Amino acid sequence: MSNRTGVTAPIGFLAAGAHCGIKKDKIKDLALIFSDRPATAWGVFTTNIVKGAPVIVSKEHIKHPATRAIVINSGNANTVARNDLANAKRMAKTAAECLGISLKETLVASTGVIGEELPIKIVERGILELAPYLKPGGGRDAAQAMMTTDTVIKEATAKLKLGSKNVTIGSCAKGAGMIHPNMATMLAIITTDAALTKPVLKDMVRRANAVSFDCISVDGDVSTSDMFIVMANGASGAPLIEKSSGQRYSKILDKVTGVCVDLAQQIARDGEGATKFITVDVTGAAGYGSAKKVAMSIAASSLVKTAMFGEDANWGRILSSAGYAGVPFDLKKVTLKIGNVTLYRKGVAISGDRAKKVKALIKKKDIAVSLDLGQGRAKARVWTCDLSYDYIKINADYRT
Amino acid sequence: MSNRTGVTAPIGFLAAGAHCGIKKDKIKDLALIFSDRPATAWGVFTTNIVKGAPVIVSKEHIKHPATRAIVINSGNANTVARNDLANAKRMAKTAAECLGISLKETLVASTGVIGEELPIKIVERGILELAPYLKPGGGRDAAQAMMTTDTVIKEATAKLKLGSKNVTIGSCAKGAGMIHPNMATMLAIITTDAALTKPVLKDMVRRANAVSFDCISVDGDVSTSDMFIVMANGASGAPLIEKSSGQRYSKILDKVTGVCVDLAQQIARDGEGATKFITVDVTGAAGYGSAKKVAMSIAASSLVKTAMFGEDANWGRILSSAGYAGVPFDLKKVTLKIGNVTLYRKGVAISGDRAKKVKALIKKKDIAVSLDLGQGRAKARVWTCDLSYDYIKINADYRT
Repeated sequence: MSNRTGVTAPIGFLAAGAHCGIKKDKIKDLALIFSDRPATAWGVFTTNIVKGAPVIVSKEHIKHPATRAIVINSGNANTVARNDLANAKRMAKTAAECLGISLKETLVASTGVIGEELPIKIVERGILELAPYLKPGGGRDAAQAMMTTDTVIKEATAKLKLGSKNVTIGSCAKGAGMIHPNMATMLAIITTDAALTKPVLKDMVRRANAVSFDCISVDGDVSTSDMFIVMANGASGAPLIEKSSGQRYSKILDKVTGVCVDLAQQIARDGEGATKFITVDVTGAAGYGSAKKVAMSIAASSLVKTAMFGEDANWGRILSSAGYAGVPFDLKKVTLKIGNVTLYRKGVAISGDRAKKVKALIKKKDIAVSLDLGQGRAKARVWTCDLSYDYIKINADYRT
Repeated sequence: MSNRTGVTAPIGFLAAGAHCGIKKDKIKDLALIFSDRPATAWGVFTTNIVKGAPVIVSKEHIKHPATRAIVINSGNANTVARNDLANAKRMAKTAAECLGISLKETLVASTGVIGEELPIKIVERGILELAPYLKPGGGRDAAQAMMTTDTVIKEATAKLKLGSKNVTIGSCAKGAGMIHPNMATMLAIITTDAALTKPVLKDMVRRANAVSFDCISVDGDVSTSDMFIVMANGASGAPLIEKSSGQRYSKILDKVTGVCVDLAQQIARDGEGATKFITVDVTGAAGYGSAKKVAMSIAASSLVKTAMFGEDANWGRILSSAGYAGVPFDLKKVTLKIGNVTLYRKGVAISGDRAKKVKALIKKKDIAVSLDLGQGRAKARVWTCDLSYDYIKINADYRT
């Protein structure tokens, strides 16, 4: 069972991924994820006003009591493109028909170039050809087929016990550019053989998202196509969780949140052109909202990110980017650290031999920035990557 | 008088710029701008909570009824650095003493690296040595001494008639990185030999700033050190303007605004690493505020800017960045153009032979993007540049 990775780790989930012809060079571009029995599902979707047609369709279909399948293509976002809505519906319909489920039980997602017409005939033929290959070990193929500028496959799993039953959580995600919160960032799909009611699932999706996908930034661009979906099919036989409180709910919420944080970190780490993975902690804030605002302002600053790429501990830029977050604070109470080295404490820049220590820290792949605002007890943690030549290269040449 | 450029174009203003020793290689790093008689002045300053010490000092001094001089250094922002406030005051005091004016009549500005202590003794000696060289033709030297990563000197002038008198407006500015609105972006100094009361000047600064410096973005980073100052010394003999209405005020407001727009465009055009100058027009909005928000969202998008650098008319990114501006609109009413070529009209992507036309347009240095939201009559225009390898290079290596 070692090949039951990612979304196919839980009981009852099958997946497949292959090349259908949207991308060149036989690169996988079509994925199917299928539950062998009705699952309860919920999701969050991009807050961008310019929404991909698949987002519009999936937002509608996910309201249905049961969800069975997700069909995903990469290489074309089917967004602000000719026939986008019609094609998203055709994609879902073709998948539903060949899986023998209803249209409303089928979600659809697309990621890739915006504005170009989806080659729907190629996609339809691809779905028909791919469906017979759905299998319990297909998670990795599906995860791979979702990738665009991602350089690594992103999966995460977790296990827990609910009542006397072993429950598994599986997942996959894609995302490297156009990553910034205000939404469910990128494509992330979590499957579980636990059983939860739809209202409980809604609560879980909201909470897990808030501290994971909503806490990463690669480039400040909010995508048109992002979605984060959880499907729970109950195949483990574990008791149905009907309340968003209590020990059982806490246990699974905790594990699902852990999986989301894991995926979110994988996305930031694989940010387009990234050479560094940066964790930003803001502590001592008056509230979580302001801690998060300051942390995201640091994480999204092009000047902080280029300094990290240049392995230059230009910490003034960190303070400066905190300063325009829109959160009032008093510099005289602020402490700034890179790793465990204090660079600024309560209004005073700390120089001397710390420079050498920081120089060594900043050469590492993983860098921790922490800023204490000295005004309260709230804190937030977010993740980002540096901004390198390769980000420019990837995005200047994206369509060629 | 042909060498009376920039801030020394109007009567009664002297300037000088030289190398004092903050920067390497004899590069100019110290500037003095002086009015031979008391001038009325007003300014707007960065909204960043982390304010440079010179901003704190100048914000206080500019409240004084008369302003005579500005002392400026580049190469060090004197911000969140050891003794920053004491050093900003010492800089102003030294300038005041050797110019024979009061401390409160003296403004101070610094731009460059954040967090490093200003070598105040070098600056003080520099001021003493520079003061004797103040001259009516010194505007260009002062403009040059303000530069950091700027590649060109930025000056603009205008002339008008007020009553029977010829009035001149002069200016200089610096700025290439850490450029984003929410403030008076960068350093910009306008001098004029017109006479205006302080309340009228305040109105003028606010209005001119709103449609010029507040409408540019290079990298989304709000600096700690930005200021935009206007000094009016009345040396032309033109009648004092005492009301922020009427024909005379309109005339000078118009000219000053024109100078500000000119400088703002120069800054965007000289954005760090820029190879393209991009004008973004948003029309058909419900109000100016929402038009501006959408325009700035497009102008600040890393994905739009890298596509421009790659000469790829990836127009979907333009719609996407409009979509996350926080302004509601209906895609079915939207029209998007690059230059005069319509790419998206009322919910439909327009393909065909337009692709070729756009390809030619996007290879030019100056690119115009226009988006009509189809919901009202308000509009806004902002300016930005592309995002290139050189932006990364400049900012990764900034302190080396």
